[in-house]
Amino acid sequence: MIELLGISTTHGNQTLDKTTLNCARIVKAAGIKTKIIPGQALPLVKPSMVAADIHGASGLDGTDLLPEPDESCILRNEKAVLHMAQVLRDHPTKVNIVSVGPFTNVALLLTLFPEVKQKIAKISLMGGGIASGNRTPVAEFNVLVDPEAAHIIFESGLPVYMAPLDVTHKAAVTPQVLKAIKARCMPGSKFAQMVIDLLVFFKHTYENVFHLYQGPPLHDPCALAILVAPEIFTIRHLRVDVVTDNGLALGQTICDIYQKSTLPPNVYVATDLDPKAFFEIMLDVWVAADQHSPLNQQ
Amino acid sequence: MIELLGISTTHGNQTLDKTTLNCARIVKAAGIKTKIIPGQALPLVKPSMVAADIHGASGLDGTDLLPEPDESCILRNEKAVLHMAQVLRDHPTKVNIVSVGPFTNVALLLTLFPEVKQKIAKISLMGGGIASGNRTPVAEFNVLVDPEAAHIIFESGLPVYMAPLDVTHKAAVTPQVLKAIKARCMPGSKFAQMVIDLLVFFKHTYENVFHLYQGPPLHDPCALAILVAPEIFTIRHLRVDVVTDNGLALGQTICDIYQKSTLPPNVYVATDLDPKAFFEIMLDVWVAADQHSPLNQQ
Amino acid sequence: MIELLGISTTHGNQTLDKTTLNCARIVKAAGIKTKIIPGQALPLVKPSMVAADIHGASGLDGTDLLPEPDESCILRNEKAVLHMAQVLRDHPTKVNIVSVGPFTNVALLLTLFPEVKQKIAKISLMGGGIASGNRTPVAEFNVLVDPEAAHIIFESGLPVYMAPLDVTHKAAVTPQVLKAIKARCMPGSKFAQMVIDLLVFFKHTYENVFHLYQGPPLHDPCALAILVAPEIFTIRHLRVDVVTDNGLALGQTICDIYQKSTLPPNVYVATDLDPKAFFEIMLDVWVAADQHSPLNQQ
Amino acid sequence: MIELLGISTTHGNQTLDKTTLNCARIVKAAGIKTKIIPGQALPLVKPSMVAADIHGASGLDGTDLLPEPDESCILRNEKAVLHMAQVLRDHPTKVNIVSVGPFTNVALLLTLFPEVKQKIAKISLMGGGIASGNRTPVAEFNVLVDPEAAHIIFESGLPVYMAPLDVTHKAAVTPQVLKAIKARCMPGSKFAQMVIDLLVFFKHTYENVFHLYQGPPLHDPCALAILVAPEIFTIRHLRVDVVTDNGLALGQTICDIYQKSTLPPNVYVATDLDPKAFFEIMLDVWVAADQHSPLNQQ
Repeated sequence: MIELLGISTTHGNQTLDKTTLNCARIVKAAGIKTKIIPGQALPLVKPSMVAADIHGASGLDGTDLLPEPDESCILRNEKAVLHMAQVLRDHPTKVNIVSVGPFTNVALLLTLFPEVKQKIAKISLMGGGIASGNRTPVAEFNVLVDPEAAHIIFESGLPVYMAPLDVTHKAAVTPQVLKAIKARCMPGSKFAQMVIDLLVFFKHTYENVFHLYQGPPLHDPCALAILVAPEIFTIRHLRVDVVTDNGLALGQTICDIYQKSTLPPNVYVATDLDPKAFFEIMLDVWVAADQHSPLNQQ
Repeated sequence: MIELLGISTTHGNQTLDKTTLNCARIVKAAGIKTKIIPGQALPLVKPSMVAADIHGASGLDGTDLLPEPDESCILRNEKAVLHMAQVLRDHPTKVNIVSVGPFTNVALLLTLFPEVKQKIAKISLMGGGIASGNRTPVAEFNVLVDPEAAHIIFESGLPVYMAPLDVTHKAAVTPQVLKAIKARCMPGSKFAQMVIDLLVFFKHTYENVFHLYQGPPLHDPCALAILVAPEIFTIRHLRVDVVTDNGLALGQTICDIYQKSTLPPNVYVATDLDPKAFFEIMLDVWVAADQHSPLNQQ
Repeated sequence: MIELLGISTTHGNQTLDKTTLNCARIVKAAGIKTKIIPGQALPLVKPSMVAADIHGASGLDGTDLLPEPDESCILRNEKAVLHMAQVLRDHPTKVNIVSVGPFTNVALLLTLFPEVKQKIAKISLMGGGIASGNRTPVAEFNVLVDPEAAHIIFESGLPVYMAPLDVTHKAAVTPQVLKAIKARCMPGSKFAQMVIDLLVFFKHTYENVFHLYQGPPLHDPCALAILVAPEIFTIRHLRVDVVTDNGLALGQTICDIYQKSTLPPNVYVATDLDPKAFFEIMLDVWVAADQHSPLNQQ
Repeated sequence: MIELLGISTTHGNQTLDKTTLNCARIVKAAGIKTKIIPGQALPLVKPSMVAADIHGASGLDGTDLLPEPDESCILRNEKAVLHMAQVLRDHPTKVNIVSVGPFTNVALLLTLFPEVKQKIAKISLMGGGIASGNRTPVAEFNVLVDPEAAHIIFESGLPVYMAPLDVTHKAAVTPQVLKAIKARCMPGSKFAQMVIDLLVFFKHTYENVFHLYQGPPLHDPCALAILVAPEIFTIRHLRVDVVTDNGLALGQTICDIYQKSTLPPNVYVATDLDPKAFFEIMLDVWVAADQHSPLNQQ
């Protein structure tokens, strides 16, 4: 069971303002009660960028079923990095952090509050790639946007788990998955329709931009799945270096696949995934959310 | 008149623990009452380094006259970056920040609290070089230690004043200056002796390490002098870029001296200094401190 | 049919002296008459390196059946780059160049004699990688050793064909292939034994160094196979950039797999290979050589 | 006494076609008989550039007194690199090479014909800078245009002499020098007028582009003067590294002024110059040429 202690938002897929509202819309749609704290609006060092070509002008295009965000759950007077530090200090046991956008918030947390590292069990992130990137041939978007933040996390000494494109591209939503969503959710479910709308939009932009046709990859859920079901992944403990130097390889995560590095391994890298098992989990999650979604109760 | 609102310490010349104690020793020796808050212990992205070859194992070698630090003025339970943000928010008017070590604290302040920029009048820093470096042929130590921090400050949009090696090497303590310290301070002053001890030590390490024999440069006071006596400097508003890429030029501050950059100027760079006027100010400062120094009252 | 106009040797797998002798040994063993001209002994810009861990101290370890080289076929008083230029000028029609070591010779040829480009039909090379390297996680050996040479060839404007690790690792010698060599060559063939010895040695070093167990990859023959049997490859016309900047990605060939580059395609990159068809060709080649090999006539 | 064995031309100030003709015009104007061999038209690795803003569209703007070139002295069917190698091989004693443009020709000579190094006494070049560049704040034009070529020369193991901007900017043509040219050359000398025209043009472009007003620097003659009158220079034997990585510092010559490098010195760097003595030599040269100039004999 996961106890969600809070969500901090980040620049990346779109500007911070937009991603914060999108986050509020999604948790509302899923019937989740949690606090949302706006995080950093810009990368640490490199210029900022957004992924409008992939996620649309809103950062979450493709459906008209998203609910209005509940402003009351957005703690606009707090700062994500400070709030995260406080949550970690206050929590009686170690906490996992899941980071599924540019890693600015978490990197700043570790930089400013190194003492809270002892309260962190694992950091699991979606980002990077072994055999390829997406935003460039060799750089994945989340790492490329703030490579120094990724570097800081990889160098933190904490147990870092990484779901790179190599596995998230195997978490591709096939037509069968779309059918299963519809079949297992409630008849006429607006929540299911919203999920399907979003996935179909993402499928099209991913096809148009990357010419990959195997179905839209469920990038971010992989980072959570590594924590709750590590057994469905192949995981290698590798040295991973982030290219922070400007140039053709900026943002690349160089994974020491031949294990020749003189530096010790620093990241648990998921290198393979059982898609069937993964989508069983996802369907359970969607069905659970479907049952609580206010979208279905109107 | 300068109102000192507090001092945050930094890694750099030595480890944070040592520089914090040294800071406490110096303010006590100078008869200054202020709070000292330990800052960041490590650079943002690059590996840390110290300058023991220049400043000794203690970070402030060369004299046995340094007083014991007054622990009560060191706010060990506070975090410099948070404290600085609070001071800025609370102060009725805009505040100047003087940064004379690696710029980690200030860079984090601007990153985590961009809203306090409006309470900052100027940032004045000692660091960088136009025609040369010191730690490498092209990189000055403070910038080299945390080049990303320097980059963040230079890109902040704030009025940044920079005292590079080109001017601090003109603020060289000649034998005449040493004599003047002795002559103008109280007869038998232990404070004067401490100052002279430190300068003589620094003179020797600077000669040994850099083969520069014009006298030890008063690097850090230049950053303060730019604020209180800008008229004794030649100052150019230039585009300055920090080399953050690893390689031979890491840490270099590339100053657009021919004004060809397509980017707008971002730093007020001191390019020349009137040494005579500068040392008049310094002697006034030393004499004032001499009169309040507890070293002279034992 | 291939008309072999000559062979120039190169530093790389071992020093130039060793590779030149190895070349003479192999052409003798295969019963081939050709001239061999020693090429460049060092990379253009970067420091040299050899691959003794993969190919042994001799550069061609693993068998005691290699014949003594025939010194008379080595034109030691000629310079490969000048000789190649002369051959191209003299030949009545366009010529293909196959480059299967560091690309120094060919890069110098194009640099010093740009006018002979009009006599070059295609340049086919073994080198680079899309999804991985071998000498480093992202850099293939031939490109890494002389990345500027690879850059020069890729920027030459000529039709360049590239067999990267992605296809050469599919040209892996399985136990079935080894059996077929023995079965199809003459009974008791020493030539076949020599080939098998070399492959078994390479199999073991490749396993030990790269932990790849699918069988030793026939890297270099792929560059020739692209010319004689392009239909057994999948070939994409892509923008390929070589990382010549020092750093973690040095020597990487960044292939624009998502076709987002603003620069036009410059390399025909083999992205897949039919191994069965490839080894049919190889077996024909081995059998043909076996029939002329002086090893079998002693 | 200097025996001029020949001149090879290079891309750089303008395209190779233009610089070759300019070279022929100047040797004719100076009454010098020598052969001119067109050299490389492009840098080894980096994209080419010219300096039309400094030297005009012709590469030698500013006068209408330049004579028509004598085509017969241009060996258009020869290749500079091959010719240089032959000259070196044929010459009974060691030869000096003076390189005053991008260093492509000499770098290729050393790369393709390492055996002729033993026939080279010294290589003296104009290029690089210690305290600044000109084309960029840190990169001098000749090095920036072909940094790999400079690297190859610096790593050649030969005695390399370098006249950086730090000394060539001290070889500035003052109004007094212009007057002296007129005074010492023949009355009504067209040659003197041509020299003055060229210097005045260069003075204006240097002022406009670099905002340097001390007079146009006689860059290239410094490289020759180091060989014939080393006593008028201060020369240090230093480690010099060329930045070949792309980025802000590309083309910088990092001179190990503090002598901290673990690598041995590789370049004799001129760090200072006696301008008076230098211009005495220059005036002698101009006067000698004036006496033989066909411009004055029409």
